[in-house]
Amino acid sequence: MRKFAADKARNLILRPSSCTTTTFVSHYRSSALASSTSQSHLSRFFTSVHPSPSSSSDSMASNPVTLETINPKVLKCEYAVRGEIVTQAQRLQQELKENPGSHSFEEILYCNIGNPQSLGQLPITFFREVLALCDHPAILDRSETQALFSSDAIERAWQILDQIPGRATGAYSHSQGVKGLRDAIAAGIEARDGFPADPNDIFLTDGASPAVHMMMQLLIRSEKDGILCPIPQYPLYSASITLHGGTLVPYYLDEAAGWGLEISELKQQLEAAKSKGITVRALVVINPGNPTGQVVAEDNQREIVEFCKREGLVLLADEVYQENVYVPEKKFHSFKKISRSMGYGEKDVSLVSFQSVSKGFYGECGKRGGYMEITGFSPEIREQIYKLASVNLCSNLSGQILSSLVMNPPKVGDESHESYSAEKDGILSSLARRAKTLEGALNSLEGVTCNKAEGAMYLFPRINLPQNAVKAAEAAKMAPDAFYASRLLKATGIVVVPGSGFGQVPGTWHFRCTILPQEDKIPAIVTRLTEFHKGFMNEFRD
Amino acid sequence: MRKFAADKARNLILRPSSCTTTTFVSHYRSSALASSTSQSHLSRFFTSVHPSPSSSSDSMASNPVTLETINPKVLKCEYAVRGEIVTQAQRLQQELKENPGSHSFEEILYCNIGNPQSLGQLPITFFREVLALCDHPAILDRSETQALFSSDAIERAWQILDQIPGRATGAYSHSQGVKGLRDAIAAGIEARDGFPADPNDIFLTDGASPAVHMMMQLLIRSEKDGILCPIPQYPLYSASITLHGGTLVPYYLDEAAGWGLEISELKQQLEAAKSKGITVRALVVINPGNPTGQVVAEDNQREIVEFCKREGLVLLADEVYQENVYVPEKKFHSFKKISRSMGYGEKDVSLVSFQSVSKGFYGECGKRGGYMEITGFSPEIREQIYKLASVNLCSNLSGQILSSLVMNPPKVGDESHESYSAEKDGILSSLARRAKTLEGALNSLEGVTCNKAEGAMYLFPRINLPQNAVKAAEAAKMAPDAFYASRLLKATGIVVVPGSGFGQVPGTWHFRCTILPQEDKIPAIVTRLTEFHKGFMNEFRD
Repeated sequence: MRKFAADKARNLILRPSSCTTTTFVSHYRSSALASSTSQSHLSRFFTSVHPSPSSSSDSMASNPVTLETINPKVLKCEYAVRGEIVTQAQRLQQELKENPGSHSFEEILYCNIGNPQSLGQLPITFFREVLALCDHPAILDRSETQALFSSDAIERAWQILDQIPGRATGAYSHSQGVKGLRDAIAAGIEARDGFPADPNDIFLTDGASPAVHMMMQLLIRSEKDGILCPIPQYPLYSASITLHGGTLVPYYLDEAAGWGLEISELKQQLEAAKSKGITVRALVVINPGNPTGQVVAEDNQREIVEFCKREGLVLLADEVYQENVYVPEKKFHSFKKISRSMGYGEKDVSLVSFQSVSKGFYGECGKRGGYMEITGFSPEIREQIYKLASVNLCSNLSGQILSSLVMNPPKVGDESHESYSAEKDGILSSLARRAKTLEGALNSLEGVTCNKAEGAMYLFPRINLPQNAVKAAEAAKMAPDAFYASRLLKATGIVVVPGSGFGQVPGTWHFRCTILPQEDKIPAIVTRLTEFHKGFMNEFRD
Repeated sequence: MRKFAADKARNLILRPSSCTTTTFVSHYRSSALASSTSQSHLSRFFTSVHPSPSSSSDSMASNPVTLETINPKVLKCEYAVRGEIVTQAQRLQQELKENPGSHSFEEILYCNIGNPQSLGQLPITFFREVLALCDHPAILDRSETQALFSSDAIERAWQILDQIPGRATGAYSHSQGVKGLRDAIAAGIEARDGFPADPNDIFLTDGASPAVHMMMQLLIRSEKDGILCPIPQYPLYSASITLHGGTLVPYYLDEAAGWGLEISELKQQLEAAKSKGITVRALVVINPGNPTGQVVAEDNQREIVEFCKREGLVLLADEVYQENVYVPEKKFHSFKKISRSMGYGEKDVSLVSFQSVSKGFYGECGKRGGYMEITGFSPEIREQIYKLASVNLCSNLSGQILSSLVMNPPKVGDESHESYSAEKDGILSSLARRAKTLEGALNSLEGVTCNKAEGAMYLFPRINLPQNAVKAAEAAKMAPDAFYASRLLKATGIVVVPGSGFGQVPGTWHFRCTILPQEDKIPAIVTRLTEFHKGFMNEFRD
């Protein structure tokens, strides 16, 4: 059985290229003799393999991992949405739990993150019925199941299982995701846009974040590669660009114009980057905006597509809030639809659209489902993207199934259609009301202005802080908006994210606040926030 | 509402540090005037935003993304488990579907990847019951549910939901995973090892792969940082090291000693790397081995721990096959248990243990659940790892729940215990039989030797190819083992991965074959493989 052992030494020749393509140290054993010699040396070395605990610290090598010896890109990366204020909030929550009444509020209200179900939003029933049935198909043909689940959920579960090879929801799928689920998503995109979509353009991912990382990993070669990002931005982008060693090229959204995107600004920043030797590879547009909540106008979208085409930029379109539009005068249009309606086809513009099951009205953050639709890339590049996807095997099947469901919900006539529509409309109209109430409340505060919440899940009010507050923040070694957010938390239990975590025009201060607390909590939030703000202004008034 | 618009120009001062820590191009607008000037210039530029399709190619910028302009690390990365042979297999499968009878076999047998449920293995009932109930808790207190689900699954679902804040399985969790689920996992580790485990050391991840990437991202600064990896290795490691820009420092497992790991070899390769200016940061050990199937002996494990401690290396222990041991004379011991049993505590050795729900007897690959347990890192480093986890928010909740279930299965006395044990034992004993049968069949082939399959899910036979076959492979521009695997696929429909995808001693040739086809398919596989091999040897005999 081991008859080739003797051949081994003969075969130990130097051929590094036959191993893998990783940078290898090209020291292969040059002879079996050398190997066995050093082995016998080392067996003496390791004779005593049971040191006593007391002796262990003597022989201990210096700590192999310190802040000085880790990847500096990791050290540099920041992610404010789960940063210092949130840690502080978790501490307060623990204090409240251990010692009820220890603070002037009874609970922590997490308005820092777009996480609807953590604040009491219920999942869409139909989606969860289908997920449960796909998790446990053994009950699909039991009579009790008919009583517990809607008939179209049962039917849909069968359909989905039929699309999964061997009906195996516990198997790795194709690295882009189950083909049949991608078919459903492509059909949903077609129905949304009125232009064809190809299931082979879809890459299903564990939420949108890994898809963003994948594109950054593909595009960024060094700090000489730049990515145009809006300021303010969702800090996933700055974090991902930092981790991949690139340069964030900021373009400022115009707060005075409802967080509008000006092509002149893009052009200016692009030229400035070029003059510094930066090759700008891509433009990130978040529409509807995070943290800013604006919905980009159709004309503006056309200008953006034109700009990317002319400048040879990949358009990275973060469209995860596509279902979250709250004003009748604005409508979501995908950049692909805009591009196609301009007459541009596959070869004209390189475009990536990110979508997620975490947002919309479903808010299924914990399921980690999402996809990117990539168009305008050559077959060789698609192959590289496929390879990146395949290194992680595939995204989770529940997330894949859910992604297909959100893009292909119950239709008129289906048993669940009525309840599904009621749940959907209930959530979206409530979100619109909450946005309006909070926007109004913020705008009524001294020195605070807040743009209209047209879409997404956030408000990003600007706070004109008194100089005394700025000084107090400096004394506390905090950014002024972080100081404000920290004081707000301690006084009210409300968690918001300081604007400095998203980027802002230097010298201006903001915070991001979600519109997600349940509607019955909104009045209390408004009261607490208003009282806190008055007190804060009185304390620090110049 | 927009009363601060006028302040904006004044605030546009150069303060790059206030934005984020990403490398920013430090060109902020220097004045609003410049901006509006260039804007009016650009509005003329973009007057025509509806070009006709025919004109579009004229104005098209050169393709922004080509193989020459992407991240060379992506280009360099390889992942053979889903590589060329698999693409070829998918093509054949399509041909069989469109044109039944077009090949001499009726189906493609995917022995390339550890994906049990894709080959017909059924999921563990209890696990799926709990998952379904957690997905759709609305049915938990319905009477029909009692008839459909076991009572302990219902009870467990309640317990799990109680551990999830707001019972919201659709909410992002703590970035390390739901605390209550980590408690259950830590308790499972304690029960397994007989040493304490801390839930704060657990990071739940979407399968083990993202955890491996996270550690590589943390440790690798440049190509001057090396990671000691076994050869042969699971290509996730080479891919991840390549993507993060590090150097794979290979150490060869000794095929003649049942793929044993010799400390002398580690030492020699470490010194060789050092002499080339490489700082070796970590040692990867895969136990049970992938692709090699060996189980590391306890004495050898102690030597490895000692080596890592002495040399200041992080021990990255891939322990995803911990439940897959098929021989009575070997037993799985976690490296943490070994380290603790040697008297080493938290401060002595930096150790990461990777675990996954994809392997074991459950084989829930599609659920993408897993965790890493990190010990021996300072609080500052743990904070950095936490930050990396938080950038991706959290892993999927179904995977988190499943991770807690595999580490805390039904106990004696629970309603499901008997069926659970029967399912588990059935799968594991069948895997052991399949391993033995395939190992025997391979060893009976001319010029083939195959080590004992002690554990994991693979066999890694060595094939001594005739020189004529090597020449034919060269003529076909293929590695000889890829040539063999390709011929095997075309003749039999059996998909294996060439040894060159895992690394092997130069001049030797292997392939990896899973032991996962269902037991009733094994005789046919043996027959087909044997016939093919005879034909191949006859064709190419020197």
